[in-house]
Amino acid sequence: MWTKERLLEEVEKQVKPSRFTHILGVIDTAVELANENGVDHEKAEIAAVLHDYCKAWSPERMKEILLAHNDSSWLSYPAVTWHAPAAMYVVRQEFGIMDHELLTAIYYHTTGRAGMSPLEKILWVADYIEPNRDFPGVEEAREFAITDLDAALRLGLRQTIMHLIEREQPIHPLTVEAYNYYQIRR
Amino acid sequence: MWTKERLLEEVEKQVKPSRFTHILGVIDTAVELANENGVDHEKAEIAAVLHDYCKAWSPERMKEILLAHNDSSWLSYPAVTWHAPAAMYVVRQEFGIMDHELLTAIYYHTTGRAGMSPLEKILWVADYIEPNRDFPGVEEAREFAITDLDAALRLGLRQTIMHLIEREQPIHPLTVEAYNYYQIRR
Repeated sequence: MWTKERLLEEVEKQVKPSRFTHILGVIDTAVELANENGVDHEKAEIAAVLHDYCKAWSPERMKEILLAHNDSSWLSYPAVTWHAPAAMYVVRQEFGIMDHELLTAIYYHTTGRAGMSPLEKILWVADYIEPNRDFPGVEEAREFAITDLDAALRLGLRQTIMHLIEREQPIHPLTVEAYNYYQIRR
Repeated sequence: MWTKERLLEEVEKQVKPSRFTHILGVIDTAVELANENGVDHEKAEIAAVLHDYCKAWSPERMKEILLAHNDSSWLSYPAVTWHAPAAMYVVRQEFGIMDHELLTAIYYHTTGRAGMSPLEKILWVADYIEPNRDFPGVEEAREFAITDLDAALRLGLRQTIMHLIEREQPIHPLTVEAYNYYQIRR
């Protein structure tokens, strides 16, 4: 049986120390947001532990996993997004995690998507605002997160797209779908 | 037989005077860009004449046209984008225009798309930079347009998405596909 502690040990083997510090921050923030929003905090914790499992893996290794699952659409977008779906396939197989909500939270934790579950929103926002993050606007996002998870998500999606455009980077269509969905539903 | 002059008279009946001034600006700019880029300037002129034919029409009237052509995906996005596909269907029927390149230039003149034809680019950019346009960055776009149509298009797509996000407006997926396509192909 995989306990949280054992999963965390496995994660630590896969990532750099600075990434592991980030993951610990996401765990704390995700548990806090889960408690504030009436979401299962154990599920939020495990999603946070595992979300960056493949972050340090080579693009070739992630590509292989995506192709093995007939999930090649990601390959049209930058490799920095591949670790999210790759982690979902890997943790499902290696740790026997079967909870659909937990798996989709990992799968969409970088891009977001239209119609996210509460757990998906919590992981996305926790990843965006955890205490080690430092960028213009992060304080505003943290304030929103306490009172209104959707407002924090909306702000994060807007800032993410702006950031990509400023750097002339491609934008994953799932992120635009998420942005449109949460703008229109205000 | 519909001459350019008669088409322009028909357009003038459909739009407000300020819009007609804009259309005259787009015609001049489109012809200039066509000559600079080795594109049929008569085709560019007619595309420019007709592109905003439905601009002053009510959302209900445009919606009816889109539904009559089983082209309802536009209805998920703001009504300001509907006049482009609507104009394509209307001018095809009313004026018997059958040139595919000319029709797609009108159809995609607001959103753009991945893999635009030279004529599509010319109408999109002319619409963006014509002499009556006045916004931060328009001078830079005009300079690019003279030397590099793709650079002007890329800048225009970036500025369009930024503008929509600043105003918290939905972004049409075709615009993101165009942005991604012209960023990646640099």
